[in-house]
Amino acid sequence: MNPADILDRLAQTLAARKAADPQVSYVARLHHKGLDAILKKVAEEAAETLMAAKDGVREKVVYETADLWFHTLVLLAHLDIHPDEVLAELARREGISGLEEKAARKEAL
Amino acid sequence: MNPADILDRLAQTLAARKAADPQVSYVARLHHKGLDAILKKVAEEAAETLMAAKDGVREKVVYETADLWFHTLVLLAHLDIHPDEVLAELARREGISGLEEKAARKEAL
Amino acid sequence: MNPADILDRLAQTLAARKAADPQVSYVARLHHKGLDAILKKVAEEAAETLMAAKDGVREKVVYETADLWFHTLVLLAHLDIHPDEVLAELARREGISGLEEKAARKEAL
Amino acid sequence: MNPADILDRLAQTLAARKAADPQVSYVARLHHKGLDAILKKVAEEAAETLMAAKDGVREKVVYETADLWFHTLVLLAHLDIHPDEVLAELARREGISGLEEKAARKEAL
Repeated sequence: MNPADILDRLAQTLAARKAADPQVSYVARLHHKGLDAILKKVAEEAAETLMAAKDGVREKVVYETADLWFHTLVLLAHLDIHPDEVLAELARREGISGLEEKAARKEAL
Repeated sequence: MNPADILDRLAQTLAARKAADPQVSYVARLHHKGLDAILKKVAEEAAETLMAAKDGVREKVVYETADLWFHTLVLLAHLDIHPDEVLAELARREGISGLEEKAARKEAL
Repeated sequence: MNPADILDRLAQTLAARKAADPQVSYVARLHHKGLDAILKKVAEEAAETLMAAKDGVREKVVYETADLWFHTLVLLAHLDIHPDEVLAELARREGISGLEEKAARKEAL
Repeated sequence: MNPADILDRLAQTLAARKAADPQVSYVARLHHKGLDAILKKVAEEAAETLMAAKDGVREKVVYETADLWFHTLVLLAHLDIHPDEVLAELARREGISGLEEKAARKEAL
């Protein structure tokens, strides 16, 4: 699969899981448990990404970052947000006014 | 820009910032401060994503998730990892054996 | 000062800061910025505690744990909760039914 | 029990659990799994404290803060650090030079 298509493919699958049986699917179970359960996983995977980076083990960083992105994609699906909206926000920062203007403005807050 | 291309574009920009002047670029400054500063931002943005989701404000979730992905992309660039490696890991989970097998196996640990 | 008294002393000071000038006090400024700013600091200090523990530097763990407790105390003060309520909850778990029953029951969820 | 004594009592119990059977004790199991498992719980409980505060439910904030402190106490026990060292660091900030000087200096970094 084209790497570029995976987020879209995943988004479709994760959205479909909202109607699936919680007994047979991990993601359906997360959707069923609700927002707090999903957010708890996002926090947990962020922590594991930190620990993998501190361990300095490259494959673990790839794996845990995938876990973190995966669970943010579950969160987006749960809230009926397509990842393209997030990519568009990232593209906007990469735009005319320069990549980092937004981040800098935020940092100044 | 094609949404599909933004991660690759961003990856190139963020990698280039490793050699940029910390005085004039937010990302160059993060790279210069080092791994812990980047990880602290990842944790902070994960927390802001949680808070945005709890607030139930859709635009804030999009914005904070973009911030979270942005800073994980800075982390990947800092460690010379291309986001395609993370997308490949996500694709692998979406593969033959089913999307959630991996997550389920992990959960069982 | 008796170590046992420090939480109570801190609680009083942090509560008093709610009425102080944001210009002259860090804690008054946090109270003034509001709940999200305080929660962001709690998340940040939790992340720094993780990183200190991964670094394996004992003094950093003490320092960052103090920072984490400090900002949870600011949170409690912000919500008019005295730390004795948290200590009472901890004491309850240490009680008749055994220290870990509660944690175990929660884990089973 | 005097609220002031609970941290010391807990510290003794949690340290004793390092030698206990992982099969019968939640804390012994955490110690046995090791540092990363404990840190993951610290991150998870920090996230739950954030969510409880966003929910604005006072009892949940007390409960989740107790969970967060509990797991930082497990972390301290795992690293052979007595909570009095953390309380001493907090007392130091409350000292002659004023409560917030340290926090302010850190913020300025």
